[in-house]
Amino acid sequence: MIVRAIVTDAPRGGVKLDSMDMDFHDFPVVLKPVLTGICGTDRGIVNGSLPFAYNPHGENRLILGHESLSVVVSAEPNSYNIKAGDMVVPMVRRPGKCLNCLVGRSDNCSDGQKHEAGVTGLHGFMRDRFGDFPEYLIKVPGNRKDDMAVLTEPVKNVEKVFEVLDIISRRSIFTDSAGAYHGKRAVIIGTGSEAFLFALKSMDWGFSTGITNRHPLDEIKGKLAEDTGMDFYDYSHAGIRENNGIDLLIDTSGDPGTVLRFIGRMNNNGIVVLFGTNGKAQPAPVDGDLLGSIVEKNLSIIGSVDGARIHYERAIQDIYKWKAQFGKTIEMIITGRVGPEDTGIFLKKPADEIKTVISWGE
Amino acid sequence: MIVRAIVTDAPRGGVKLDSMDMDFHDFPVVLKPVLTGICGTDRGIVNGSLPFAYNPHGENRLILGHESLSVVVSAEPNSYNIKAGDMVVPMVRRPGKCLNCLVGRSDNCSDGQKHEAGVTGLHGFMRDRFGDFPEYLIKVPGNRKDDMAVLTEPVKNVEKVFEVLDIISRRSIFTDSAGAYHGKRAVIIGTGSEAFLFALKSMDWGFSTGITNRHPLDEIKGKLAEDTGMDFYDYSHAGIRENNGIDLLIDTSGDPGTVLRFIGRMNNNGIVVLFGTNGKAQPAPVDGDLLGSIVEKNLSIIGSVDGARIHYERAIQDIYKWKAQFGKTIEMIITGRVGPEDTGIFLKKPADEIKTVISWGE
Amino acid sequence: MIVRAIVTDAPRGGVKLDSMDMDFHDFPVVLKPVLTGICGTDRGIVNGSLPFAYNPHGENRLILGHESLSVVVSAEPNSYNIKAGDMVVPMVRRPGKCLNCLVGRSDNCSDGQKHEAGVTGLHGFMRDRFGDFPEYLIKVPGNRKDDMAVLTEPVKNVEKVFEVLDIISRRSIFTDSAGAYHGKRAVIIGTGSEAFLFALKSMDWGFSTGITNRHPLDEIKGKLAEDTGMDFYDYSHAGIRENNGIDLLIDTSGDPGTVLRFIGRMNNNGIVVLFGTNGKAQPAPVDGDLLGSIVEKNLSIIGSVDGARIHYERAIQDIYKWKAQFGKTIEMIITGRVGPEDTGIFLKKPADEIKTVISWGE
Amino acid sequence: MIVRAIVTDAPRGGVKLDSMDMDFHDFPVVLKPVLTGICGTDRGIVNGSLPFAYNPHGENRLILGHESLSVVVSAEPNSYNIKAGDMVVPMVRRPGKCLNCLVGRSDNCSDGQKHEAGVTGLHGFMRDRFGDFPEYLIKVPGNRKDDMAVLTEPVKNVEKVFEVLDIISRRSIFTDSAGAYHGKRAVIIGTGSEAFLFALKSMDWGFSTGITNRHPLDEIKGKLAEDTGMDFYDYSHAGIRENNGIDLLIDTSGDPGTVLRFIGRMNNNGIVVLFGTNGKAQPAPVDGDLLGSIVEKNLSIIGSVDGARIHYERAIQDIYKWKAQFGKTIEMIITGRVGPEDTGIFLKKPADEIKTVISWGE
Repeated sequence: MIVRAIVTDAPRGGVKLDSMDMDFHDFPVVLKPVLTGICGTDRGIVNGSLPFAYNPHGENRLILGHESLSVVVSAEPNSYNIKAGDMVVPMVRRPGKCLNCLVGRSDNCSDGQKHEAGVTGLHGFMRDRFGDFPEYLIKVPGNRKDDMAVLTEPVKNVEKVFEVLDIISRRSIFTDSAGAYHGKRAVIIGTGSEAFLFALKSMDWGFSTGITNRHPLDEIKGKLAEDTGMDFYDYSHAGIRENNGIDLLIDTSGDPGTVLRFIGRMNNNGIVVLFGTNGKAQPAPVDGDLLGSIVEKNLSIIGSVDGARIHYERAIQDIYKWKAQFGKTIEMIITGRVGPEDTGIFLKKPADEIKTVISWGE
Repeated sequence: MIVRAIVTDAPRGGVKLDSMDMDFHDFPVVLKPVLTGICGTDRGIVNGSLPFAYNPHGENRLILGHESLSVVVSAEPNSYNIKAGDMVVPMVRRPGKCLNCLVGRSDNCSDGQKHEAGVTGLHGFMRDRFGDFPEYLIKVPGNRKDDMAVLTEPVKNVEKVFEVLDIISRRSIFTDSAGAYHGKRAVIIGTGSEAFLFALKSMDWGFSTGITNRHPLDEIKGKLAEDTGMDFYDYSHAGIRENNGIDLLIDTSGDPGTVLRFIGRMNNNGIVVLFGTNGKAQPAPVDGDLLGSIVEKNLSIIGSVDGARIHYERAIQDIYKWKAQFGKTIEMIITGRVGPEDTGIFLKKPADEIKTVISWGE
Repeated sequence: MIVRAIVTDAPRGGVKLDSMDMDFHDFPVVLKPVLTGICGTDRGIVNGSLPFAYNPHGENRLILGHESLSVVVSAEPNSYNIKAGDMVVPMVRRPGKCLNCLVGRSDNCSDGQKHEAGVTGLHGFMRDRFGDFPEYLIKVPGNRKDDMAVLTEPVKNVEKVFEVLDIISRRSIFTDSAGAYHGKRAVIIGTGSEAFLFALKSMDWGFSTGITNRHPLDEIKGKLAEDTGMDFYDYSHAGIRENNGIDLLIDTSGDPGTVLRFIGRMNNNGIVVLFGTNGKAQPAPVDGDLLGSIVEKNLSIIGSVDGARIHYERAIQDIYKWKAQFGKTIEMIITGRVGPEDTGIFLKKPADEIKTVISWGE
Repeated sequence: MIVRAIVTDAPRGGVKLDSMDMDFHDFPVVLKPVLTGICGTDRGIVNGSLPFAYNPHGENRLILGHESLSVVVSAEPNSYNIKAGDMVVPMVRRPGKCLNCLVGRSDNCSDGQKHEAGVTGLHGFMRDRFGDFPEYLIKVPGNRKDDMAVLTEPVKNVEKVFEVLDIISRRSIFTDSAGAYHGKRAVIIGTGSEAFLFALKSMDWGFSTGITNRHPLDEIKGKLAEDTGMDFYDYSHAGIRENNGIDLLIDTSGDPGTVLRFIGRMNNNGIVVLFGTNGKAQPAPVDGDLLGSIVEKNLSIIGSVDGARIHYERAIQDIYKWKAQFGKTIEMIITGRVGPEDTGIFLKKPADEIKTVISWGE
């Protein structure tokens, strides 16, 4: 069938809405998108700044899109009970043959032979139709038609981070004297969508949680932070000093200078999670004292990328929990909706964007 | 009684062998030293370059010494079965009141209120007599009079690191397809005593293990490396490129530039242990690509300091294991013996020192 | 003030609604109940069959009640931000002085010196007013006035079990080839409230989940199971054979014969959680083959009691998640509401009870 | 070539020394045995009491032997650096295709498709020559010709148990207030070779350790226990009561009655390891109180079988450590040596056997 698709030429970049003839006979499940989210990776591919992106083998273009909420058009019988009409979120990474991939943890791929839909060697979800396999589709519980489910993919990154955190934190007693986290302080660097999602999960765990950036929050973000109970401060203004005593630091900026400044403010046994990446960020110096403090304080600095099926499953559950708890407030995360033809959205980020989504219509 | 003691004035520095009148009535166990090891921390205190060192409260001097093999002179009955004549190793850190200290893990002290014998607010073991409590004394199994036991304190650092490694490594499949570590590569930065001890433990785990430095090994170190089966290479000469593909990196240098260069060579899921500290080391820049690779590779960077009672116990057992396995070879680690009066040893490190010890005679 | 309270004389038993003069000056927070749940433990104390129950020291009666949703009447300023008007769930266990209690894990009390409100040496929550400390009060997120929050106490048991499960399961690869639990089968023995709550959590994890008993489900339970997606079968009828291949078995019956029968059906690496207790249950024999199969299959059999603050916090979040997912269905768990004066409810369990609660009015 | 082999017909039983023509072209490594140990499994197969044993596919006999110390006759170049003349211990289990087998953990085989040399579908090591693959051969460190290395296979079971123990024990604080195990009590049920090996490892961890049986120790066992520092008591005589307060219980008997009696004596948070199997043991009853105590005490009961490559590696290291620590004492574990022709040893266990080995001569 003829489908519209948003394509680029990775890693060179560019973006257009194109039409092409595709068939899906090789796939037991055929789907059409409801919403697809746009993130910094999409924009990076389009502007040609992500050298690791590449087209599928033997092709000269890459269909974009890795944050998707889709509906099943047709499905062969399968053990995951995926049926026509189901609302699902497709996984981004597909396994290679390393040990981690073999056991369903391509998010921890050992040898880089995995693929990522819409990013590395595999067409993405921004097209009228696509085929897939049931083991890579996450059903929305209760099959609810709820736009918030498009956040499942970014939230799955959060879920993996907190799984790793749970493991890492066992190297010492990380909880407070009540066996919980109220006496502990989490700081999230950044105020984008991923930062807000990390902060929501951090509050679920009970951390006293703040997000930070070097400029004030705009009105929507300010209201979102206030209504969900997270702190914010502008570190360019208030100075970093008031942030002494961090137990959990999560970075979404990828900026070495900012990360290193905050690492210097960690408590003993603190955990630093690196999630953001920015290849163009300015270098920043590490001196002997900072390196020594990582040793003396028993700090753990953890890089974490992607997530596994289990994290998608937990993500969609957490999204529903947050919606139940915060109601309309949480819906403010989706700040814009555009059509597939509005490819300009890849070239310029709206001023007060938290998350922009493409709506694929009926 | 009148005892000789090697004293400094922390953090100002200096060193002399002094005599003083001390009594030990407050202590259930009284001990005298057999051997005390000298390490970079001792020399740092003496030359006044460690600002965190301090004298015991209300005193104007600090007795040095934290690596000790001692013999029990007298002991009140105790549940640890410490008796006169026992060969023991005293622990360095003594707990404060934080949760980690309360459960016997002052090595993970949360609030910095612990003390360290010979370093921070507590007299050390370089004196003819000292008193202690049985819970801080580690018995040498079989009560053997074996000089190698003086390495227990530095080896306990190694044991803690491998405990942390065991926990951290559970975030992904870190073993090879045989469920072991033969297919994995460990690199230890540095060629001092601690580097050799880390390398021995790494080989026990089965890692293909190398130590590295920016100059050739002298004869003794070269023989020690060869006879125990660890690789060495001079990274100033061979170039760093041949070191691609590191799974476990352990730093004993504290030098940011060296550490960052090697972090760039890690495999996916790799683990970096920071152990060395050097406040005077030259700063080195972290750029966005390196930070991003920590994320994309799911790296873990772990600071680790000190060790708990359980690590001292494992250390003394490992030392005996290594001695059984390598015989005289392992004794080459002790490269020099001096008397308590030879305080010049604190001021100048012998050219080919691995570990120098002070022998306290009969 | 004069308060009504539901009292017993532990461990002798009996029950009545009594009035007494109490003051709460020693407590920074004063509360009044909204709902209190009744469980098998309450009935066991009342009928004198729980020898471990006892009155507070020096008193000849025990106020019942450990499953509570309460509202704060007044509160001194506190770091937990508990304020008048807040909806809260008070914790049951209060710590002794063992290491586990010291770090906030009285649920793992090592020496039995902890107390349990309404059960062992501490007055419970079935009274018009009670005082407490902020560290033992769990705020209902969003401060919602929602009856389902009275289930927090029983759900916290579930949360602890799944924390333990997460740790235990790391001894082998317990997930399926998709890195999740869809290919794994969980069976919950029992069809009481705790069984349903375990089953809900098990489905959240992705296990194919069934509850089982030796008689058919009544109408309400049948509908609850069906609408939430859990299987049921009557093992007296269908035979146990069809239950071969269990990966996770959770017992809420405390009946040795039933438990042992199901343990014989476990898969390799299976995990058995024992939660139910029944001192009057018939003994059942373990033979050498069953014991041997625990060895050969690498089974783990885990007793788990109570939960810590962190588990209460997760419980209330999961309750909201379930309510968002299942809506009115989940409210069917509360099958009856009585007044404080209806003490007959302690003597006779209603035929189709899942959970009966006492409503304390305005 | 013509080789002698000790053969049975599994699961029917019987034993004889037979000669047969075998070639080893399919194997990169060819070996000849130095010593092979005899254990209860060998005798069980010979007397036909182990229904799970079976001959290799399409054959009518099974070569016995799974505890082996062998020497390499020839070897193709390989990444494990196995060379002619090397002393090695071959692994028993060989993987199937389940997830655990794929990652090198056939000891945790999920589906039972693994094989065991000398037991299930694979010829064993009791023959003049055998072929193997380098990934299943454990080198004796230092290539020492030391008979004690024949204990590697039984000790690897111990190493796995303590790995599992390390994981399981993280569900609560299991160490004492010194962060170690001196305040904790381990009891090993049984006084056979495996019991002694478990006790040695338990003492290494620092547990106050005892072995127990219902009859007095003979002279050799008594001396072995005394010289290594483990307690013994005859529980038929002294009564079980004096054994209250067990933190770690390890069973090597497989006898339900004995195991259940001791489970009743566990401390809170205690861990019970089931290792012994005895299909012919008398059944024993579990009552509701015992089941309830597993719940109330947060007990963990862990079956454990076999071990992985990493456990063999740790085993051979521990054997050397024990030999260094205990000298000749530890050699008392090998109580008898016979020739391959002495097949009567499979039919009757010598009265005071700890471990009997077959010596294959030059």
